[in-house]
Amino acid sequence: MFKVDYGNPLQVAAMWSNLVEPGDNAAGLLTGVLGQAKGLEWVLESADPKELPSELVADTEGRKLPWRQAIQRWLPRVAEANIEQQFEYLQRLGGRLMYPQHPDWPGQLNDLGEYAPLALWMRGNFELAQPREWVSLVGARASTNLGDQLAAELSFDLVNAGFGVVSGGAFGIDTAAHRGALTVASQVSSEALATIAFMAGGVGQLYPASQLDLFNRLLDVGLVVSEVPPSWRPARWRFLSRNRLIAAFSAATVVVEAGVRSGALATAHRALELGRPVGAVPGPVTSQMSFGCHQLIRECGVTLVTNAQQVGELFLGLGAGLTGGALASEGVQSELVFVSDDFNNPVHERVWLALPKYGEATFVSVAKVAGLSVSEVSAAVSALLVAGKVEVFGDKCRRIYS
Amino acid sequence: MFKVDYGNPLQVAAMWSNLVEPGDNAAGLLTGVLGQAKGLEWVLESADPKELPSELVADTEGRKLPWRQAIQRWLPRVAEANIEQQFEYLQRLGGRLMYPQHPDWPGQLNDLGEYAPLALWMRGNFELAQPREWVSLVGARASTNLGDQLAAELSFDLVNAGFGVVSGGAFGIDTAAHRGALTVASQVSSEALATIAFMAGGVGQLYPASQLDLFNRLLDVGLVVSEVPPSWRPARWRFLSRNRLIAAFSAATVVVEAGVRSGALATAHRALELGRPVGAVPGPVTSQMSFGCHQLIRECGVTLVTNAQQVGELFLGLGAGLTGGALASEGVQSELVFVSDDFNNPVHERVWLALPKYGEATFVSVAKVAGLSVSEVSAAVSALLVAGKVEVFGDKCRRIYS
Repeated sequence: MFKVDYGNPLQVAAMWSNLVEPGDNAAGLLTGVLGQAKGLEWVLESADPKELPSELVADTEGRKLPWRQAIQRWLPRVAEANIEQQFEYLQRLGGRLMYPQHPDWPGQLNDLGEYAPLALWMRGNFELAQPREWVSLVGARASTNLGDQLAAELSFDLVNAGFGVVSGGAFGIDTAAHRGALTVASQVSSEALATIAFMAGGVGQLYPASQLDLFNRLLDVGLVVSEVPPSWRPARWRFLSRNRLIAAFSAATVVVEAGVRSGALATAHRALELGRPVGAVPGPVTSQMSFGCHQLIRECGVTLVTNAQQVGELFLGLGAGLTGGALASEGVQSELVFVSDDFNNPVHERVWLALPKYGEATFVSVAKVAGLSVSEVSAAVSALLVAGKVEVFGDKCRRIYS
Repeated sequence: MFKVDYGNPLQVAAMWSNLVEPGDNAAGLLTGVLGQAKGLEWVLESADPKELPSELVADTEGRKLPWRQAIQRWLPRVAEANIEQQFEYLQRLGGRLMYPQHPDWPGQLNDLGEYAPLALWMRGNFELAQPREWVSLVGARASTNLGDQLAAELSFDLVNAGFGVVSGGAFGIDTAAHRGALTVASQVSSEALATIAFMAGGVGQLYPASQLDLFNRLLDVGLVVSEVPPSWRPARWRFLSRNRLIAAFSAATVVVEAGVRSGALATAHRALELGRPVGAVPGPVTSQMSFGCHQLIRECGVTLVTNAQQVGELFLGLGAGLTGGALASEGVQSELVFVSDDFNNPVHERVWLALPKYGEATFVSVAKVAGLSVSEVSAAVSALLVAGKVEVFGDKCRRIYS
């Protein structure tokens, strides 16, 4: 087992990144109050939920977080936290680990409060990750040709005008947004602040793999960032929590195309919760891929934007720095708000996704993969059993495909 | 010269309709204060701008309307007001004249205040012109196929749901809107409240003439309405003032497609000034015909709507009757706000349009055609002369085509 040097912030951040799933607000609260090092020390050395550190008790008065569950989520992962191998891997990748106390930490992410990331693993042009006029351009993977074209043009024009473009490296609108930005860097000015991709999986697991060409260009002049260790896979729930980083890192968010259940809408809602300006591009009322954009404009007070100048106007009224408010704890929904139709509970879905595709797994191993406590897994498995989605054999279970 | 019986409100309204151009607020103010009969009597019998009726002086304290100009606009048209022939013509057409004191007068038009119409000439199903849930669907003449399809579908769904649809009988979106409504009447329910067309020219001069098929169906189950005498031609400036009737008659206005200089935008702005809810349908950001809609949504607080249900929701918050505010006099712009690029002054354009296409005309005749005073025409002609747009010979002038 790796022995953490609590005086080494890189090791501390790396360990936190191994113990928790993104957006675990118990970890955010604990490290926010105690600091990452002291918080980690308490988890690894004592971790008695009946004896919470006095600072934590004082600062979180009235909050009844399930500390026991939290500790049970984190501790089983300690033994598997192969920090040394991860650092070696990161070095081979030419990457860098960033921790919150570092002077280059992008402070706008702290607007997420207890949902702020605990570490950022990066590859590419590290100097990009500074607070400045970043716009996120997000949207559907199943975008239309027109949507792709618009995203690329918007991105090109924005980068040309001195903005930076953030997206998620996915197919469709994300790809078009990154490409538009990279075109400025390759054809107009090699010094152009181009583009950052926030990834759901680790920076050694760039996904989707067929986007290799895009990722190579991103690693060359852009930046790829993730809050999970380099080797971790992009599990489905990590896409949803990743969206909050895109929203918080950017000073403004624009949805180019989105169906009514698109993850891009989650990004937009995160940005709205953070007080960041949000824009959406309209489209034909007959295009499913514009339904989400129209809904944002109609119902959420999102600004209709049709070109880069109008996107730039979203920044009017923002100060030189970022002025968005922090996420009010009571206003924040779970990071797992979008549940597919097959599951009516995000934890149930996460457990099901954490099961191997074929074959069986113990509750303990499922808990580690999902980043949940064994009792949370057990409760979820019971519900999945009733729903006919899993079979259970003693302390093991397996998926049933209907 | 026709001798008006001041006790006959039909004759009085018909005469007013002959003397003034639509939206002449001096006439609106005069008849609003004195009543149509007494106002007309003053104009025809005394008309000394130095001796305004005492009621008018008291009621319009502080307003310095150019009464002398107004009277000079109106009086030259008295001799040509062939009221008897117009009534005969109306009878042949099976039409009807409506005046403001009539119990069936659509009272919502009075929200226009001093810009309210002085008479309404109608053909078709007279019972339609009642205050109820009327929606105006307006938009570009040079609409896209998609826009036409949407307008027809919206209109069909709205009429099917019990709303009535108002438009302007023009090519493009207007036609599609009327057709969608008429389809409900012909295919679903013959009792469906279908559709009203407000015309810029007289109801005997239905324009464009190539829309004969549409107009025949409108006359059969819908209604055609105009504030100018039946034989008057649809001069260009009358389209702009006609738009205010569409806005005021309807409880809500929806722009389906509109370029950035479309007259439909004027209708939307009138509706906004009246406190009526306004919606606009989004479209591809690459479609010029959606630019105006996007501008309304972005800059004017207009609601994005994509289907009939959302249009219906525009009525939420409105009472059973119409609750829009009256046009505040100081907030109202001239009815002639949209000037084509060739003219920087709407009166200059109106004078130019009132000139015969070929050949010359006296200042006096131009004044009658344009509904302006001779001194207004004279000033405009001077400016047009300097601009090289007209030639002048003594008291006559003619167009120059560059």
